[in-house]
Amino acid sequence: MTKAAPSAAPARIERLDREDPLACYRDAFSLDPETIYLDGNSLGALPKGTADRLARMIAKEWGEGLIRSWNTHDWIGAPQRIGAKIARLIGARPREVIATDSTSVNLFKLLGAATMVDPARRTILSEQGNFPTDPYVMEGLEALVGRKVRLRLVSAETLVSAIDQDTAAVVLTHVHYAAGRRWPMARITNAAHAKGALMIWDLSHSVGALAVDLNGAGADMAVGCGYKYLSGGPGAPAFLFVAERHQSMIRSPLSGWMGHEAPFAFEDAYRPAVGIDRFLCGTPSILGLAALEAGVDVLGEADMTRVEAKGLALAELFIAQARSRRPGLPLASPVEAEDRGLHLCYRHADAYAVMQALIERGVIGDFRAPDLLRFGFSPLYVSHRDVWRAVEILAEVLESGAFDHPRHRRRTAVT
Amino acid sequence: MTKAAPSAAPARIERLDREDPLACYRDAFSLDPETIYLDGNSLGALPKGTADRLARMIAKEWGEGLIRSWNTHDWIGAPQRIGAKIARLIGARPREVIATDSTSVNLFKLLGAATMVDPARRTILSEQGNFPTDPYVMEGLEALVGRKVRLRLVSAETLVSAIDQDTAAVVLTHVHYAAGRRWPMARITNAAHAKGALMIWDLSHSVGALAVDLNGAGADMAVGCGYKYLSGGPGAPAFLFVAERHQSMIRSPLSGWMGHEAPFAFEDAYRPAVGIDRFLCGTPSILGLAALEAGVDVLGEADMTRVEAKGLALAELFIAQARSRRPGLPLASPVEAEDRGLHLCYRHADAYAVMQALIERGVIGDFRAPDLLRFGFSPLYVSHRDVWRAVEILAEVLESGAFDHPRHRRRTAVT
Repeated sequence: MTKAAPSAAPARIERLDREDPLACYRDAFSLDPETIYLDGNSLGALPKGTADRLARMIAKEWGEGLIRSWNTHDWIGAPQRIGAKIARLIGARPREVIATDSTSVNLFKLLGAATMVDPARRTILSEQGNFPTDPYVMEGLEALVGRKVRLRLVSAETLVSAIDQDTAAVVLTHVHYAAGRRWPMARITNAAHAKGALMIWDLSHSVGALAVDLNGAGADMAVGCGYKYLSGGPGAPAFLFVAERHQSMIRSPLSGWMGHEAPFAFEDAYRPAVGIDRFLCGTPSILGLAALEAGVDVLGEADMTRVEAKGLALAELFIAQARSRRPGLPLASPVEAEDRGLHLCYRHADAYAVMQALIERGVIGDFRAPDLLRFGFSPLYVSHRDVWRAVEILAEVLESGAFDHPRHRRRTAVT
Repeated sequence: MTKAAPSAAPARIERLDREDPLACYRDAFSLDPETIYLDGNSLGALPKGTADRLARMIAKEWGEGLIRSWNTHDWIGAPQRIGAKIARLIGARPREVIATDSTSVNLFKLLGAATMVDPARRTILSEQGNFPTDPYVMEGLEALVGRKVRLRLVSAETLVSAIDQDTAAVVLTHVHYAAGRRWPMARITNAAHAKGALMIWDLSHSVGALAVDLNGAGADMAVGCGYKYLSGGPGAPAFLFVAERHQSMIRSPLSGWMGHEAPFAFEDAYRPAVGIDRFLCGTPSILGLAALEAGVDVLGEADMTRVEAKGLALAELFIAQARSRRPGLPLASPVEAEDRGLHLCYRHADAYAVMQALIERGVIGDFRAPDLLRFGFSPLYVSHRDVWRAVEILAEVLESGAFDHPRHRRRTAVT
């Protein structure tokens, strides 16, 4: 990998890092000091504790404990235990969250549950350009169920006015995966409730990053991803939230044995478990949950207001410096910090090649089709100096035209 | 743990182990030599290679490669690559199998797909007393879809005659989770086809144990478990099979972004991927898949006919010796080997306490409600000597009444 010459950051930048109350968290992650990792919103960095936890889990719990570890090491309670830890991060009660399955599968459970509440309401309303798995899952439900469910995608601008008496649920990603635009959670939830619709939030780009307050906003249900800011590892189990007031009234369409009131009674008929447990389906990935728990534990008792504030400050720093170094580079994210999550997108006709050149220089961000450079600012391991250097290297790549090389244009399976 | 005094096995038993062509596989597993593990059909033993593979994966691929490993370490191809390895074990073509999600979630995908094929057929037919997650998932689909789907559970004896013009799909577990009874795959598949129904097999208790031949039997679809005979670890990803002839005609109701033809194009509308890939949903567990692959790789090029023959021989040995030592203990599994999988059940009024006493003595099997002792014979790591000793210890526990103690009656969360 070609490394940019290390440039000393200005004193004001070094001071920001020295005064950063979250700087101590960087040491909890195993990150090459030469890498500037601005992609924790796609795959969170590896916590130092994860390898040991998995090694112990594999050798002791699985290898020696064998089947007994379902009880002796409480594998059976892992989805609830980790769910309770995630609950703290998103303004939920401990028994309102469960960690299991993927975000897509969990969204299907909640959509199915939501559309079974009131047969008179058929529409699932969402935003055009939402992270595609959300509308894809809605389409799958629509195709399966037929005329009882109708998916409607509208522009962000017309969304609130599109909520009506036929709306069963409004489904939105709290922070848009590309633009980084943040929906005002309480206001939109209220707008949905005013028309009698349920509000489902996808927190994939918020959990572990923003001070989310689901119950404060009155949200009904939510899903979120374990492998971004929670650092649960590639394809980590996701989670889902169902407000306590709904739990006994709704049921999951994915009613596997782990969501049964008595899974080991092996009854022929399904009786949903009491509470959030009914949203389990098959046997959850115990290895995946162990890694997720190690990631969630890094956040521990961290003050999420501080975490959010730092992430927003890093983004502000990026914007200001980019504006000064490359004034012509168009920001594709909202200008106001309160309207954003913790990542930014910039538009560039050669975004793919530019990102490859950046990665070659140790600045890892994302390309997002068709023309976006995406940079995420994980507050626990990105420093102000990282941000400063990233913009310097970006400016260098753009000025020099170094991205304009065939090897940077070679597309890979995952972009 | 109280260990039974090691008793030397008779010479004929020792000879069986010496002449066992599969004996070399035992060394591939990390198993306490004092433990007789007859529960590999519930959670497979730990392969020695798994810990290293996971450690490397975590440190190098995740920790150093970060997001790049989706390409550089082919995370993106893991479901297909491992699916192809499983395909060899079940008589399928490489591109007919994919490893992802749980058995329950995969069954929902296939059931949903099957019921969308012909709207004139509404019935999903299965067996009373099937492993409960199967009927539970069917119930969930029925509750979601309404009158278009109807679940019907009948006795094993009347199953074939219950297939009719309304049957969309017949769903059966190839080897029954409790009795160990094995359905004749080709005959039942033919019976389903004769009435125009699709045949879906649950291979959870067959894959990695029996010489399954899905295409030989003409099966349409199948699911199976990764954490039993495949030794993929607790809650390992499961797999699904769709015969090539159906792949382009059906679609998964769980249409997440990983099943899209171009997941990274981020299109609003769902276009199912070509082939088996369309049955992916969300981001699969890469850690879970790495462990599953390590387990599947132990089977490598093993001759499944030999694997099955050894497992059946171990079960025969258990039956013969139990009959001689405890003639009154009723076998709850079929008498004929060809009607069985690789586990046996015995009925005992105090089955729970008896199993606890056995576990205390290093013989690990399962209790299955209400009154079954279950013993599984994983051909790769169970020896003839293990079986012989297990029956000796069982006989000792039953004769002495040692199971009749309050500590053996204390129920745990997972039984």
